[in-house]
Amino acid sequence: MQITREKWSKNFSEWFDWVLREGEFYDYGRYPVKGMGVWMPYGFKLRQNIISIIRNLLDSTGHEEVLFPLLIPEDLLSRESTHIKGFEEEVFWVTKGGSEDLDVKLALRPTSEVAITTMENLWLKSYKQLPKKYYQIVSVFRYETKATRPMIRLREITTFKEAHTVHETYDDAQRQVEEAIEIYKKIFNNLAIPYVLSERPEWDRFAGALHTYAFDTIMPDGKVMQIGTVHHLGQNFSRALDFKIQKKDGSLDYPHQTSYGISDRAIASVIAIHGDDHGPILPPSVAPIKVVVVPIPAKNEEGTQQVMKYSIEICEMLNKNNITCVTDQDTEKTPGEKFYIWEIKGVPIRLEIGPRELASSTVFIKRRDNLKSYTVKKEEVVNKVKEVLNEIQEDLRKRAWESLKSRIEYANDIEKAKNILENNSGIVEVPWCGSKECGLKIEELTNARVLGYPIEDRKVNDKCVICKMNAKTVLRVAKTY
Amino acid sequence: MQITREKWSKNFSEWFDWVLREGEFYDYGRYPVKGMGVWMPYGFKLRQNIISIIRNLLDSTGHEEVLFPLLIPEDLLSRESTHIKGFEEEVFWVTKGGSEDLDVKLALRPTSEVAITTMENLWLKSYKQLPKKYYQIVSVFRYETKATRPMIRLREITTFKEAHTVHETYDDAQRQVEEAIEIYKKIFNNLAIPYVLSERPEWDRFAGALHTYAFDTIMPDGKVMQIGTVHHLGQNFSRALDFKIQKKDGSLDYPHQTSYGISDRAIASVIAIHGDDHGPILPPSVAPIKVVVVPIPAKNEEGTQQVMKYSIEICEMLNKNNITCVTDQDTEKTPGEKFYIWEIKGVPIRLEIGPRELASSTVFIKRRDNLKSYTVKKEEVVNKVKEVLNEIQEDLRKRAWESLKSRIEYANDIEKAKNILENNSGIVEVPWCGSKECGLKIEELTNARVLGYPIEDRKVNDKCVICKMNAKTVLRVAKTY
Repeated sequence: MQITREKWSKNFSEWFDWVLREGEFYDYGRYPVKGMGVWMPYGFKLRQNIISIIRNLLDSTGHEEVLFPLLIPEDLLSRESTHIKGFEEEVFWVTKGGSEDLDVKLALRPTSEVAITTMENLWLKSYKQLPKKYYQIVSVFRYETKATRPMIRLREITTFKEAHTVHETYDDAQRQVEEAIEIYKKIFNNLAIPYVLSERPEWDRFAGALHTYAFDTIMPDGKVMQIGTVHHLGQNFSRALDFKIQKKDGSLDYPHQTSYGISDRAIASVIAIHGDDHGPILPPSVAPIKVVVVPIPAKNEEGTQQVMKYSIEICEMLNKNNITCVTDQDTEKTPGEKFYIWEIKGVPIRLEIGPRELASSTVFIKRRDNLKSYTVKKEEVVNKVKEVLNEIQEDLRKRAWESLKSRIEYANDIEKAKNILENNSGIVEVPWCGSKECGLKIEELTNARVLGYPIEDRKVNDKCVICKMNAKTVLRVAKTY
Repeated sequence: MQITREKWSKNFSEWFDWVLREGEFYDYGRYPVKGMGVWMPYGFKLRQNIISIIRNLLDSTGHEEVLFPLLIPEDLLSRESTHIKGFEEEVFWVTKGGSEDLDVKLALRPTSEVAITTMENLWLKSYKQLPKKYYQIVSVFRYETKATRPMIRLREITTFKEAHTVHETYDDAQRQVEEAIEIYKKIFNNLAIPYVLSERPEWDRFAGALHTYAFDTIMPDGKVMQIGTVHHLGQNFSRALDFKIQKKDGSLDYPHQTSYGISDRAIASVIAIHGDDHGPILPPSVAPIKVVVVPIPAKNEEGTQQVMKYSIEICEMLNKNNITCVTDQDTEKTPGEKFYIWEIKGVPIRLEIGPRELASSTVFIKRRDNLKSYTVKKEEVVNKVKEVLNEIQEDLRKRAWESLKSRIEYANDIEKAKNILENNSGIVEVPWCGSKECGLKIEELTNARVLGYPIEDRKVNDKCVICKMNAKTVLRVAKTY
């Protein structure tokens, strides 16, 4: 085995489909509804581990988990006018119950702002109850007309972690936006996913938001994928739903809200970003299986059985130390076939245990990420595995960050920007005057999408690539998913 | 406070609605879609604790968790003819995406047999892969035309734990049915929910099943509620979906399947069954908060502050020992008002800590279930609380079982059976010849529903209440939810 990244980066779509199916993460394209896939047992465990990280971070920052109905009546969804315009063409509608027509069409939730604000209006009366932070982990639905892709562009997004918060003032909501951004940074760090944080331009905000802040990452093929968004909703939804609270000064007013969400794409990026031609390399923080033991047969049956016994013993030792380990006990496959399977599953460490290891009471440890190996004494294996898992986690994070950074370029010329995007993809930053007109022109001329600008208004001593006025900041442009 | 159970048993519906809303479990009847409620943070935690118990039991018996799409195309749902007949009048249909009409109507899953069998057909090829046991925890939907009730009769059942298994032979599937029954017994024991296990009669089986076994419990008002079902599906679904596997003898044949499920009703019964007029009494095994500390103010501010400090110290001690404890630090409410709130939330133990306890370094422990109290030294509080929690768990279980058993009566006369059901409700067992005709007649004459018969064919030396032929077994009849 060698580290190669040809297939992974050049034929990423194919690689990704292959990994999801062969690695038994997610069966896509075979369930008879377009854009909806099936989480298989192994993928489901990865999904659960990622959900746990997010849940723990949200719980520990005072978010309370709730669960709202799937269905939103049409009249409710239409209350906030920008919101419904943003979603109406991509909503699935329930119109029948049994053979009866329903009086009111019911939407499969595309997102839950109006549903949640409806109940907040009943639950929250006073500033004393604020700030209030709710979240839920649910399926959301989008009638995508573009080509769908597993985990990335779906009609059923099965793992939407959406938070919704309520505050007395605009500034309180802004502070919540900052908290949300910090939480998301922690989540992505934990998943070893590098990101670029931008404020989305006014023409690409969440429907109904005052500000949208987005985390984007770069996929192996150089295309950019949005992996998390944070919205300052201001009073748009509270006003539309006539939701008022009593303020500290005794007056009644509409509270300020935020919402933020992370979808299945967080899982897609964990699988995609740390890969090579043999499959993904799952960060130990979320890998369902951290160590696989592949027993190497001996020359005779008795020796093989002793190797198996020793393998199981080592694996149990690791499990007892909370390092999830599995011994591949299949007797029909060769070690090589087993290596292949566990590589597609992205298990970060493989132990190869054969007659030599048995005889010397040692264990051969192989890292999935850089192919380094170590032979250690049986009694050192737990500590060494722990150490190697930590190193892998850190190295994956570093490598991914370096790769991301190397794919961000600056161009003060629109043709140059266009060329970079066409040849190397990634993200191009161009100097920009700040106007919508120039922003849209940049999108048109580069045939790419504007991600937005750095939240810490980054000054550039340059001219806008379109109007040649003094640039206010850089605008980020990319080919996106 | 006295133990009274008037309101709880005589006005159960009202009691239940009041507890769900005031106890902040589940907001029902205010969300603008009929039959769909909102899990509030406290109720959500209870729901999670119950899910954890079920998940652990399923995981530890080799069930693998998966997640299937919500939507099932009409043609797929119609493949098993009995199945679609059983569900077609109560399916919600998605017919539109944006403003387009869909080519094929899509059902919101009422249950997932056909969806899961479709993928099993792709995943499972050989007897070597069997038995295979999948499960998922999802929302299922029923367009109920009867009056809906919170958690009990819903249009969105949010917490359906459905398992689906595949086996080589009929007998293997039957053994799986038995395993499922044992798992469900453990689940209900853990929740301190007593049950009656019956095989449903042929006219009340799950649509598409060969056999349906059901767990029923008796609610405080004497009405019976189904809380879990286990189905032997035979080859009905594998045949309908042309799902074959290679058997040990090399031949290709349809495998045998089972499915079993537990819904939100398990949660409803945990809240309902152990109640009294002050609210529910949650079994410690699932209570989100096991101990609440209510500080009793002193005569002066400084004393009150010291009591608060001592209260928090005790609570932290419990939390450190993995006993979830909360100190009610509200300074505007009286202790009496606080007692009221925590009783509606069903917290099993209350600690009252005032100047006297502070002065003597003691803690006053009050049991929610039988009002017994204990004063113990600070250093004994952790052990005493653990002991009392165990006692409460055991006592709740015992009391509930005694109550259930006292509500099962035998009647060898149809008039007597009818009278019992009209006056005392509960379950009546009548001798029965085994014929469908007589069974349906029993339902008609008692104006109640047949639950079925004991799975261990219980012989009775008596005559069928309808045809006067020798009875084969008893048939259970009840007013049901």
